[in-house]
Amino acid sequence: MPSTTVNQDLQHEREKCSFKNEDFTVWWIGGEAKLKEKRSREKFFLSEPEFFDKVPLHFVSHKEVYEESVRKSTVIFRKVKQMQEQGKDGVDNYMALLGGLLGSGIIKEGNPLAVHFVMFLPALMGHGTPEQQAEWIGRAWNCEIIGTYAQTELGHGTFIRGLETTATYDERTKEIVLNSPTLSSYKWWPGGLGHTANYCVVIAQLYSKGKNHGIHPFIVQLRDEETHMPMPGITIGEIGNKLGMNGVNNGFLGFKNVRIPRGNMLMKNAKLLEDGTFVKPPSSVLTYGTMMFVRVVIVRDMANYLSKAVTIATRYSCVRRQSVINPDQPEVQVIDHLTQQYKLFPAIAKSIIFKLTSDNLWDMYNQVTSELDKGDLERLPELHAIACCLKAVSTADAAQAVETCRLACGGHGYMTCSNLFGTYGMVTAACTYEGDNTVLLLQTARYLLKVWTQAQKGQELVPTVQYLKKFLSSNQRQTWDDSVPGIIAALQTVAAGKLRLANDHIEQRKRAGCTPEEAVNLTSIELARTADAHCRAFLVQSGYEMIEKSCKTAPPELARALRDIYELYAYDEAMKAVGDLLRFTTISESDISRLQQKLEGALAAIRPNAVGIVDSFDIPDMVLGSALGAYDGNVYERLFEEAKKSPLNQEPVNKSFHLYLKPFMKSNL
Amino acid sequence: MPSTTVNQDLQHEREKCSFKNEDFTVWWIGGEAKLKEKRSREKFFLSEPEFFDKVPLHFVSHKEVYEESVRKSTVIFRKVKQMQEQGKDGVDNYMALLGGLLGSGIIKEGNPLAVHFVMFLPALMGHGTPEQQAEWIGRAWNCEIIGTYAQTELGHGTFIRGLETTATYDERTKEIVLNSPTLSSYKWWPGGLGHTANYCVVIAQLYSKGKNHGIHPFIVQLRDEETHMPMPGITIGEIGNKLGMNGVNNGFLGFKNVRIPRGNMLMKNAKLLEDGTFVKPPSSVLTYGTMMFVRVVIVRDMANYLSKAVTIATRYSCVRRQSVINPDQPEVQVIDHLTQQYKLFPAIAKSIIFKLTSDNLWDMYNQVTSELDKGDLERLPELHAIACCLKAVSTADAAQAVETCRLACGGHGYMTCSNLFGTYGMVTAACTYEGDNTVLLLQTARYLLKVWTQAQKGQELVPTVQYLKKFLSSNQRQTWDDSVPGIIAALQTVAAGKLRLANDHIEQRKRAGCTPEEAVNLTSIELARTADAHCRAFLVQSGYEMIEKSCKTAPPELARALRDIYELYAYDEAMKAVGDLLRFTTISESDISRLQQKLEGALAAIRPNAVGIVDSFDIPDMVLGSALGAYDGNVYERLFEEAKKSPLNQEPVNKSFHLYLKPFMKSNL
Repeated sequence: MPSTTVNQDLQHEREKCSFKNEDFTVWWIGGEAKLKEKRSREKFFLSEPEFFDKVPLHFVSHKEVYEESVRKSTVIFRKVKQMQEQGKDGVDNYMALLGGLLGSGIIKEGNPLAVHFVMFLPALMGHGTPEQQAEWIGRAWNCEIIGTYAQTELGHGTFIRGLETTATYDERTKEIVLNSPTLSSYKWWPGGLGHTANYCVVIAQLYSKGKNHGIHPFIVQLRDEETHMPMPGITIGEIGNKLGMNGVNNGFLGFKNVRIPRGNMLMKNAKLLEDGTFVKPPSSVLTYGTMMFVRVVIVRDMANYLSKAVTIATRYSCVRRQSVINPDQPEVQVIDHLTQQYKLFPAIAKSIIFKLTSDNLWDMYNQVTSELDKGDLERLPELHAIACCLKAVSTADAAQAVETCRLACGGHGYMTCSNLFGTYGMVTAACTYEGDNTVLLLQTARYLLKVWTQAQKGQELVPTVQYLKKFLSSNQRQTWDDSVPGIIAALQTVAAGKLRLANDHIEQRKRAGCTPEEAVNLTSIELARTADAHCRAFLVQSGYEMIEKSCKTAPPELARALRDIYELYAYDEAMKAVGDLLRFTTISESDISRLQQKLEGALAAIRPNAVGIVDSFDIPDMVLGSALGAYDGNVYERLFEEAKKSPLNQEPVNKSFHLYLKPFMKSNL
Repeated sequence: MPSTTVNQDLQHEREKCSFKNEDFTVWWIGGEAKLKEKRSREKFFLSEPEFFDKVPLHFVSHKEVYEESVRKSTVIFRKVKQMQEQGKDGVDNYMALLGGLLGSGIIKEGNPLAVHFVMFLPALMGHGTPEQQAEWIGRAWNCEIIGTYAQTELGHGTFIRGLETTATYDERTKEIVLNSPTLSSYKWWPGGLGHTANYCVVIAQLYSKGKNHGIHPFIVQLRDEETHMPMPGITIGEIGNKLGMNGVNNGFLGFKNVRIPRGNMLMKNAKLLEDGTFVKPPSSVLTYGTMMFVRVVIVRDMANYLSKAVTIATRYSCVRRQSVINPDQPEVQVIDHLTQQYKLFPAIAKSIIFKLTSDNLWDMYNQVTSELDKGDLERLPELHAIACCLKAVSTADAAQAVETCRLACGGHGYMTCSNLFGTYGMVTAACTYEGDNTVLLLQTARYLLKVWTQAQKGQELVPTVQYLKKFLSSNQRQTWDDSVPGIIAALQTVAAGKLRLANDHIEQRKRAGCTPEEAVNLTSIELARTADAHCRAFLVQSGYEMIEKSCKTAPPELARALRDIYELYAYDEAMKAVGDLLRFTTISESDISRLQQKLEGALAAIRPNAVGIVDSFDIPDMVLGSALGAYDGNVYERLFEEAKKSPLNQEPVNKSFHLYLKPFMKSNL
C-alpha cells in the first residue's frame, strides 16, 4: 500500500488556504445536519468489504463487469434497507446512491437496478390509477419484482411521436396485444432491461377500434418470476458494450403477439374502456413535472461529477512538478503554470455554479408546481425553456471541463485508474439522454421566439426573459461596464441581440417563400446559439444571486473565497463571449485588456485556495476512485500499485510469447 | 448477416453526387498507381481470416485484448514479408499498417510491435555509429529481437531534461551501470515495453568521472532471448488499462545496477571514450529532423482518423430519420436538420484540409532538410514553430470533431460498435504524446516573440511570418472583405494583433519587476491563443494553396466540390474568429450576417455531395469497423447483429440472477 504520509507539496497547499474547510463543506452540503448524515452514510457504505474489487473491473470482461455490478447493487439496496430499519432517512440515501457521487464510487460502471427506482417506480406512481398503484407499487418497492422503463427504440429516441411499437386492443378477449412491427421498433437502451428486470413499463402506440390514440404506458411481464426465463413472445437481451456505464445492462426488447390484460395499461390520465372506447386525458400538462425533475437532477449530477474531476486534477497538479519557470530554480508544481490554472479553476467555478443553479431551478420548480396545483400554468413554459437549455449547457460544459481536466493530467490522465475518463463516460452520456442537447436548445429557442413576439407587442414578460423589455426599449448599444451587474446586463443584451437577428432571419426566409418550419430549420444554427446565450446569461445571473445569498451568512473568509470563484466564472464567460460583446455592447479594446487582467487576477486569487476548495468538496478517496486524486497525494506510489494489479503482471512471461512471438522471431532467422 | 441490399436513402444520396467518386479517390490517395496499390494491399490484408474476431474484443478482458493484439501483429508482419518477397513496396506497407487506417482496422487497440518499427529501429539508425548499426539493425529489422524506446518516466514526460534514470560509467570494468534512483524515475509508457520487447533504447542521464553529461541513448537487453524472462536487475511490467490503445502494451521499467558494455551507448553524436572522457556532439540540430517527421505523420493521422469518423457519422445521418420539419410530411433524414450539417460538414472539411497541410508540411520539411545538408539552418526554427502548433491544433480540433461526430449519432454513437469512441481514443492520445499541446503552442509563441522583435527592427522575415511585416507597416485596421484572400489576410492580422498585445503585456510585466520568464508565464494564456491564431491563419492559407493546386488538374465537377469544401472551412474558421475579426479588422454587423449566410450557403452546396465525399475517402467497412458507418447503410440490422455477439446474450438467464438477484428479490418478501 502507498505510504500514509501526505505529499509535502499538497500539505503545504493545505496550509495556505484562507478559509476553514469545514465552513465550506457545511455550506456545500447544505448544513451541519446534512453533512453529518452524509459522512455517516459514507462510513456505513464505504467500509463494506463486499464493495472492494479484488481485481479492478477495468481489467475484466464485459460480462464480468455486469455480474459484479448486479452483485454490488443487491448489496447496496440491502444496506439501504438496513439503514431504513435503523430509522435513517431513505430518500437521501436513494439520491446519494442512485444519482449521486456515492453510488458512482461503489459501482463505477452504473447500477443495473437504478432504472427500477428512478423510472419504473415513478412511472407507476405518475401514470397508474390508485387501484393500479395498490396492485404494483408494494411489490416493486420491496423489489419482489424488478422493473424498467422502455420508451426509446432502435429507430427513435428524442422524437417520441415516431415510436413504432404497437399495443392493439382485442375487444373479444379484453386484452391488449403488443407487437414490434419492424426491426427499428425494437426497444433499445432501457437500463436493466437486458438480463436484470422481469417487468417493464412499455411505451407503445395504442390502437383500438382501428384507430390510433398516440403513445401510452403499459405494464408488461418480461421474465418468469421463478426461472427468469423470457416470457412467450418476448425477445430480449443486452445491447452490447458502450463507452461507459457497462454495469447498467441496457437492453433490447421485441414483442410478438404479447397479450396483457386491459388493466395493464396505466390509466391515471388517458383511459381505455372495456368496449375499446378511448378516453382522452383532461390535460397533458402534468407530464412536464417528471421531465423537469429529471433535468434538475441532471444539472446537479453534472456539478457533482465535475467536482470529482477537478478534485483529481487539482491535487495532481500540485503534486506533479514539471519544467522550470525561472531557469536556475527547481521544477515548479504544474499548477503554477498559468495555462494550467486556466484549465482547472474555471472548471472548479463551473462545478459550484452548476450546483447552485440546480438548487435555484429546484426552487423555481417547487414554486411553479405549487402554482400549478392552484391551476396557474403561466410560468410552466418559462420553466420548461430554462430547464431545457440548462440541461444542454451544463452537460456540454461539464463534459468539456472533465476532458480538460483529463488532458491537464497529461499521459497519466489517459490511464483508466485516473478515473477521469470514467467520469467523462458518465457526463458525456448526459449530453444525449433525456433529450439530445441540440434539440433541447432549439426547444428553448422556440420559446424565446414566442416571447420575442410578446415583448414586441409590449406584453408583460416572465422573470427569466424580462431583459428583452429593456433591450427593446433602448435604441443604443448596452454600455459596457465590467462590474458583475454590468457583465450580467451585457450577456443579457447579447442573448436579446441574437434573438432579434434570428427572428429577423426567420422572417426574411418566410418572405422568401419558406414555410415557418423550414425557416426555423434554416435559421437553426443561429437559434441554437441564441438559446445558449440566453442560458449563459441566466447562469451568470443566477450564480450571482445564489453566491450573494450564501455570502450573507458565510464567515468573511469563506465569503471572500466564494466571490473570487464567482468572479472567475463571470469573467471567463464574458471573455468567451467577447466577440458577441463587441457586437452588442460598447466594449472597447482597452476594456478587453482590462477584462483579461481581471480574469488573470481571479486565477491568482484562487491559486492559494485551490486545494482547500477541492478538499472542501469532501469527496472520499473511494468515491474519487483515482490514483491521481487521493487525499494523500501519493500519486506515483498509487499509479504503481494500480499497475501491479493488472492480471498481465501476475506472471513474468505472458503465454503470447510462446504461442505467437517466439515462433515469429525465430521464423525470420 | 445483414441483408446485402443498400439502404434506399443512402442509394439516393449516391445518385445525387455531382462528381465522379473515382476522380476524388484518385486525387485523395495520390494518383492511380497509389490507389491501385492501396486496394491490392487492402484486399490482401482484409481477406485474412486470422484477423476476424470470433468475439469482438470490446467484450473480452484486458489481458485477452493484449494476447489477441500480439497474435494479430505477428500475422501482420509475416504478411508484410510475404508482400516484400513478391516485390511489393515495403515502406508504404509499413506506413499503412503502423500509423495508417489499415492498421487501425486490423488491430483497433493498437499494435504492440509498432514502437519497434516506429521508434526502436529509427533510434538505432539515427543515433548509432556505423559499427553499432551493423551490429544491431540486421537483427532488429528481421525481428530476431524486438525493441522499444524508453524515454518518458513516471515523473517526467514533456520536460526531458528532468529525466532521472542514471547511466554511470564504471572505468574499472568499462561498463555503464543503469539505475532507477527513485520511484518517479521508473520508465513509464513506452509501447511494447510491458511483455513484448526484449531489447530497449533507454534514455538516461550519463555520468562519468563524477560529472553529469546530460541525457543519452543506451541499448539495454530487457529479457532473455530464449525464455523471455526479465534480465537480472530489471523490474518490468505493463502499466495497466487505458482509455484506448490497450493492445499497445505500454510498460514500466526499473533498473537496479544493470550493467551494459560501454559500446551499448549509441554514439553517432556524443561519445564516451574508454577512459571516461565525454566528447560533445558537433551540433544538436540534427535531432530536430525525427521530431519534425513524427509531427508530419501525426497531422496526417488526424486527417485519416477524422475521415473515418465523418464517414461513419455522415452515412448514419442519411439513414437515420428523426423528427419532422414540415408538420404534415414524413420524418426527415437527420442530415436535413441544418444543425446536423453544421456538425458534420466542417469536420469533413477539416479532415481534407489537415491532409493537405500535412502534405504541405512534408514538402517544407524536405526543402528544409535539403537546405540543412548544405549547412543552411535558417528555416529550421520556422519549420519547428509551425510543426509544433500544427500538431497541437490538428490534434485538438480532430479530437473535438470526432466527439462531435459521435454526439451527432445520438445514443447509438455511445455504443462501442459505432467505433466512434475507439477513434476518439486514438485521436485524443495524440493531444498528449509527442509534446503536450499547451507546451507546443507556447513553443510556437516563443518563436513568434523572437520574430516580432526582428520584424520591429525591420529585418527580413521567413515566409510563414511574412504577414507581420504588412501588419507593422499599416497603421489602420485590416479592411474586411469576405473573399478567400480577404479572409486569409484578416486571420493573419488577428494573429499579428494578438502577438503585439501579448508582447506589450510581457514588456509591461518586465517593467513591473518580473523576470522575463515569469513575464512569459503570466502572459501564457494570451501567448497560447496567439500561437493558435497563427496556426489557423496558416491552415486557411495553406489549405487554399493546396486546393487551388489540386483544382488545376481536377475535372471541373471535382474542382467545384473541392472549392465548396474549402470555402466552408474558411467561412467556419472566420465565423469562429468573429470576435477577433471585430477587434482587428473593419468587419461590421452586416458583414457578419453576410458571412453567416455564406457559411450556410456552403453547407447547402456540400449537402448533395456529402455521401459522395465520404465514399470517396475509400475506407473499407472492416477499417471503419462500425455498425453505423458501413457502406450498405443497414444500420439497425448491424447494430442488432453486434448486440447478438455479446457473451451475455449467449444464454437467456445470466448466472447473476441465481447468485444475487433472486435471493435479493425473495429476501424482501
